[in-house]
Amino acid sequence: MALINHQFRLAARPVGEPKRSDWTYVEEPAREPGEGEVQIRVLYLSLDPAMRGWMNDAKSYVRPVQIGEVMRAGGVGEVIASRHAGFKPGNHVYGTLGVQEYATLDGKALTQIDTRVAPLPVFLGTLGMPGMTAYFGLLDIGRPQPGQTVVVSGAAGAVGSVVGQIAKLKGCRAVGIAGGRDKCDYIVNELGFDAAIDYKSEDVKKALRQHCPQGIDVYFDNVGGDILDAALSQIARNARIVICGAISQYNSTSGIKGPANYLSLLVNRASMTGMIVFDYADRYPQAMHEMSAWYAQGKLKSREDIVEGLETFPDTLLKLFSGANFGKLVLKVAK
Amino acid sequence: MALINHQFRLAARPVGEPKRSDWTYVEEPAREPGEGEVQIRVLYLSLDPAMRGWMNDAKSYVRPVQIGEVMRAGGVGEVIASRHAGFKPGNHVYGTLGVQEYATLDGKALTQIDTRVAPLPVFLGTLGMPGMTAYFGLLDIGRPQPGQTVVVSGAAGAVGSVVGQIAKLKGCRAVGIAGGRDKCDYIVNELGFDAAIDYKSEDVKKALRQHCPQGIDVYFDNVGGDILDAALSQIARNARIVICGAISQYNSTSGIKGPANYLSLLVNRASMTGMIVFDYADRYPQAMHEMSAWYAQGKLKSREDIVEGLETFPDTLLKLFSGANFGKLVLKVAK
Repeated sequence: MALINHQFRLAARPVGEPKRSDWTYVEEPAREPGEGEVQIRVLYLSLDPAMRGWMNDAKSYVRPVQIGEVMRAGGVGEVIASRHAGFKPGNHVYGTLGVQEYATLDGKALTQIDTRVAPLPVFLGTLGMPGMTAYFGLLDIGRPQPGQTVVVSGAAGAVGSVVGQIAKLKGCRAVGIAGGRDKCDYIVNELGFDAAIDYKSEDVKKALRQHCPQGIDVYFDNVGGDILDAALSQIARNARIVICGAISQYNSTSGIKGPANYLSLLVNRASMTGMIVFDYADRYPQAMHEMSAWYAQGKLKSREDIVEGLETFPDTLLKLFSGANFGKLVLKVAK
Repeated sequence: MALINHQFRLAARPVGEPKRSDWTYVEEPAREPGEGEVQIRVLYLSLDPAMRGWMNDAKSYVRPVQIGEVMRAGGVGEVIASRHAGFKPGNHVYGTLGVQEYATLDGKALTQIDTRVAPLPVFLGTLGMPGMTAYFGLLDIGRPQPGQTVVVSGAAGAVGSVVGQIAKLKGCRAVGIAGGRDKCDYIVNELGFDAAIDYKSEDVKKALRQHCPQGIDVYFDNVGGDILDAALSQIARNARIVICGAISQYNSTSGIKGPANYLSLLVNRASMTGMIVFDYADRYPQAMHEMSAWYAQGKLKSREDIVEGLETFPDTLLKLFSGANFGKLVLKVAK
C-alpha cells in the first residue's frame, strides 16, 4: 500500500512576498525507490532566505524551481526504504528533500547524520548549511585576524549567530546587528558577542561608530539595503565585506537598492566579495569536524525556531522576511 | 625682483559641477626657496577626475583642499632655484605643484624626470600617476590571466587606455567602453583593443553580452553608475572588479547611485575592490621601468589633450566630466 505524500509545489512566480496562491498543495502516492535510490520520511525542513531567490525565473547559482515542481528545501529525515548499499531503514540523512512528507532520491545525493552529535534540527542550522556558510564565509573570505572587529547583520539568525561565535573563538571583537531587544540580549548574553545593535530602534550608522571606533575590519552581510550602507560608512582600511545574502531586498518590487556608499571601498582599499557555500563542499568534513567539537564543548551554541506542520509552510516561510523567527527557522514535518 | 605667481585657490565647496565662482584667481609674489626647498616653474599640470573629490569636505584618502588654499594638482616643471642638494636649475621634476605658475616645495616631495624617455606631458599620463594606477590596479587587483577578458570603462582616458594596452600585453582580450565613435575607433585602431563599446550610442549591457560571450573576468571601473551595473550583469565566475573611480557620480547632487546589480558578486563569487595608487609608491620604480620599456618599444601609446593657459583652468577641468577631452587632459601653464 503506497504512502500518501503531501507536497507544496510552486504554482506561480511570486511578485514581492510569496502569497498563498503562489503554491499548490498536492497529494500523491510516495514513489518507491528505484535501483540506487532511497526513500525518506521527511522529519525537519530548513527554511532559508535563499529559497526566495530560487522562486524567481532568473539565472543564478542554481536552477530556478520550475512552475509545478516541488519546492526545493534542505531537510533531514529517516530512511524508510533503500536500494542503495550505503543506507538502510532507520538511518538519518541530510539532503535536498523538498517541501513534502516523503522524498525518494539517489543515495549519492544524501549524507548520513550522526544523531549522537546533536539533535536533528541542529543539522539544518549550526551544523548544517548555515553553519558551513558562516564558517567558510568568515574564515576564507573575511579572513579576520585576532583583535580585529567583525560585524555581522542578521546576527541572531542561523548564519549570523555562528559568524559572531566563530569570530569570538578566533580572538576577534564581534558586533551583531539584529532586530529587537530580545535578539540583541540573546547574542550578547547567550552567545558572547561584545555588542549588539537593534536596527529596529537604533541609528545603525551611529551605533557602528560607537561600537567600532577603530572601524570594521570584516563585515559579514546577510541583509543588504540600508544596513550594508551603514556598514560601508564605517569600514576600516583594507576591510573585507562578505556578501552572503540580502534578505531586505529579496521581496522588493521596485528593484534592488545598490549600496550608495560603495566608494568607501575605494577610499579604504576594501573589498566586497560574494560567496556560495556549495563551492566549499569538499571541505565540509573539515569544517564539520571543528564545528562539532566546538558544539560538544559548549563553545558554539545553537537555537532553532521550530514550527510544526507541513501545511503551515507558506506562512512559516514569511517569518524569515519579517524577522519574526528567533533562531534557525525549521519546519517540523513528521510527528 | 620677485616673480609674480598666479594661482587658482578654492573659494567655495562646489555643489554639483564646479562653477567659476568656486575659484579665486590670485596674484602674489612667488616664494623664494628656504633650506631644503626647491622653486619650480610649472610647465604642465595634470587635470584628473579625483580633483573633484578633493574639493569636498569629506573624510577621504587625502585631506580635502581647504577653502582659500591653492588647488592641489600634480604637475611637471623646471627647477629655477634650489636649496636642496638633489636638484639644480634646469632639472625637470614631477610633484604636487598646485594650480599655479610657480611652486616652492620641499625637495623630498619631488621626483626627477628623465626627459629623454618621453615628452614632459607623458609623465602626467601614461608614465605618471594614471599609468601607475592602471598598472597596479589591473595587475595587482584585477590579476588577469592570459586568455581572459578585461573590460575597462573610460577606455580612451588616461587610466583606461593604459589598462587596455597592458591587458593586451599580458595576453588578454581587451574591451573598452568610451564615449563617441572617435574614441572607440582610436582604442581599437591605434591602441589595439579587441572591441569598443560607445556608451553614448549603444546599449552597453547588450554590447557587453555580445563582446564578452564568456563573461567578463576583470572589470576595471572608472565611471560607476549605469555602466558599472551593466558590467556587473555580465561578469564571469570569480570575476574581479577594480574600483578606481566613478566619474559619472562625482558631480551628483542627488547622492551616489549604488550598483543595484551588486548581488551578481554573490551569484558569481566575484569581488569588487577599491584601490588608491599611492599605496604602491614603493613599487613605482619597478612599474616605471617596465612601462618605459614598453613605451620606448612603441608597445604602449600615449595621447594627451593639451589645453593652453592657466587662466582656462575652471573651464578646462569641466572637460573631464562631459568627456570632452580626448586623451590625458593636461593644462599647459608656462609658455
